[in-house]
Amino acid sequence: MLMEKIKQTIESIKPVNSAAGKNASDRLDNLTKPPGSLGRLEELAQQVCSIRGGNISGFSSKAVVVMAADHGVAASGVSAFPPEVTPQMVLNFLNGGAAINVLARHGSADVYVVDMGVASNLPDHEKLISRKVALGTKNICEGPAMTRDEAIQAVTSGIEIAEDLIRKGVDLIATGDMGIGNTTPSSAITSLVTGADVKLVTGRGTGIDDQGLEKKINAIQKAIAVNSPDKNDGLDVLTKVGGFEIAGLAGLILGASAHRVPIVIDGFISTAGALVANLLAPTSRDYMIAAHCSVEQGHGTALKHLDLDPLLDLNLRLGEGTGAVLSFHLVEASVKILNEMATFGEAGVSDNNG
Amino acid sequence: MLMEKIKQTIESIKPVNSAAGKNASDRLDNLTKPPGSLGRLEELAQQVCSIRGGNISGFSSKAVVVMAADHGVAASGVSAFPPEVTPQMVLNFLNGGAAINVLARHGSADVYVVDMGVASNLPDHEKLISRKVALGTKNICEGPAMTRDEAIQAVTSGIEIAEDLIRKGVDLIATGDMGIGNTTPSSAITSLVTGADVKLVTGRGTGIDDQGLEKKINAIQKAIAVNSPDKNDGLDVLTKVGGFEIAGLAGLILGASAHRVPIVIDGFISTAGALVANLLAPTSRDYMIAAHCSVEQGHGTALKHLDLDPLLDLNLRLGEGTGAVLSFHLVEASVKILNEMATFGEAGVSDNNG
Repeated sequence: MLMEKIKQTIESIKPVNSAAGKNASDRLDNLTKPPGSLGRLEELAQQVCSIRGGNISGFSSKAVVVMAADHGVAASGVSAFPPEVTPQMVLNFLNGGAAINVLARHGSADVYVVDMGVASNLPDHEKLISRKVALGTKNICEGPAMTRDEAIQAVTSGIEIAEDLIRKGVDLIATGDMGIGNTTPSSAITSLVTGADVKLVTGRGTGIDDQGLEKKINAIQKAIAVNSPDKNDGLDVLTKVGGFEIAGLAGLILGASAHRVPIVIDGFISTAGALVANLLAPTSRDYMIAAHCSVEQGHGTALKHLDLDPLLDLNLRLGEGTGAVLSFHLVEASVKILNEMATFGEAGVSDNNG
Repeated sequence: MLMEKIKQTIESIKPVNSAAGKNASDRLDNLTKPPGSLGRLEELAQQVCSIRGGNISGFSSKAVVVMAADHGVAASGVSAFPPEVTPQMVLNFLNGGAAINVLARHGSADVYVVDMGVASNLPDHEKLISRKVALGTKNICEGPAMTRDEAIQAVTSGIEIAEDLIRKGVDLIATGDMGIGNTTPSSAITSLVTGADVKLVTGRGTGIDDQGLEKKINAIQKAIAVNSPDKNDGLDVLTKVGGFEIAGLAGLILGASAHRVPIVIDGFISTAGALVANLLAPTSRDYMIAAHCSVEQGHGTALKHLDLDPLLDLNLRLGEGTGAVLSFHLVEASVKILNEMATFGEAGVSDNNG
């Protein structure tokens, strides 16, 4: 029954409209600037038009979805911060004091906080969306992170959240994450899916030292050896070495793609979710906009696998969706260029053929 | 008399307040995020605080100053566009149809258009600031671009425009330019000041072909040989191979620096102005924020000479201040992070010390 929702969503993800992208490109070449001189903004305008099927109006409502969950593997000492920070930061998000709140306000976006599987019972809060699958995943060094049914449930929740937002009028969505220990499953997923060695895609997360890094690499190698995930089966990857927020983000990406809404991918954890979404529905890749290149080792490898070129390179490594909401400004700028600039004819400016 | 103004301004450029920068850094480390995890945004917050002497309030008024002028060297066929495009684009700026207008509106900044030396008489317009030094520079392949007095006049105008804006309450300023042919003097200045070979710092501007590029390189080499500018004398560099808008931008940078207002440097032409400002007053360098790295060959060399690390890398090559106003969003974000984020104590979040 739940799997039915995922199947339906995957089937409804259609290729982007390349004719609409070409129309945007033609218009861009006729605006009062040397052709191509706005670089990535022009590419972005074309992508957004191809995603939205030619709709070039501004965005009416922007959202960042911050999915939070805990990770059994945190018990193996893979993080610089203790696990109680996950629920503490969720409260910080709800109270508006975290970086994502500040940057979302700055970019006029709304923050949606989702409990996908925090390892403690959170208080009811009008701004908290509860989709808790379980009180954190199991330790992936010892067995699967979750059951296959739990993976399906988490992906389905992500799809449903995308649909809820889109129904409310949201037309630009960013991914965000919170979960102490979550760079560990993200590195495992990245290594598995891209084929890169674990050492090359494992970094310091929130700031572990050399000894911690070695422990983390060992934990990931052990998790892959113990679980033998099928790297061609997105749900098996999530089941064996995933996380509830990563699964939820994969679902969010699928849901946005199915409804032709651009989905802005934040950093390393979000991109792990994007790798899974791409396994489940390769067409979803064309709906993704890579916001930034994180400091976290492995992010570049994951982006390259998806053939996504990040917009920003600001040495961020916070997650929460911070890089993604920062890049909203560029996505909106690209659409405004298309809408608001004068053509050579309108402005009476000679082009370079005249 | 005019030189007096430049001297006074240079003398009033004081070192940035490093204690204020350190205070900002201490506060950043106490906010609810792993230390340093907001990367360049944290560095930017520190720089802005050191520039403003500890004032961490938001910006109340933002401006981009687009300085326009023509270049005698355009007659040597160094540009893909004809010279009449300079006044045509000025009118486009005044009518709000150019890329800079769109992006400035998007970033809630005001556009100030300055005629520094367009080679035709422009109509009076309430939004046009007339500081015309002459009807374009002379052809630098044949002799000096301007007289030393004209260079002094242009730099002084830039200083005065900065002062006018600051008096009106503007507290964040971006540089912008318009002038068919102006990558040619910018490459000449960059080669002279950085010592890099002309070929390595000369690019395709608005889009010349291989033959045009060769012609342009020859023209720059000839200009330097004919004029022998003193590369340690900013005013001599401007006089021999400069442009009126480049001189004006150098003055604008000096004026902003003297009043402790952050000055966001756009692309290649603006950075040529920054090289000159840095020659005249090396302390001004610490007031500069490099907005982006342009596609234009030579921009990276100029930024490296100034030891400035650009915020954006979007393959822009339009000028007008477009990259600079885009980066306002990041500058403002950095200050808001400092102002609006909760500390570990306030939010009840455990830090990584236990």
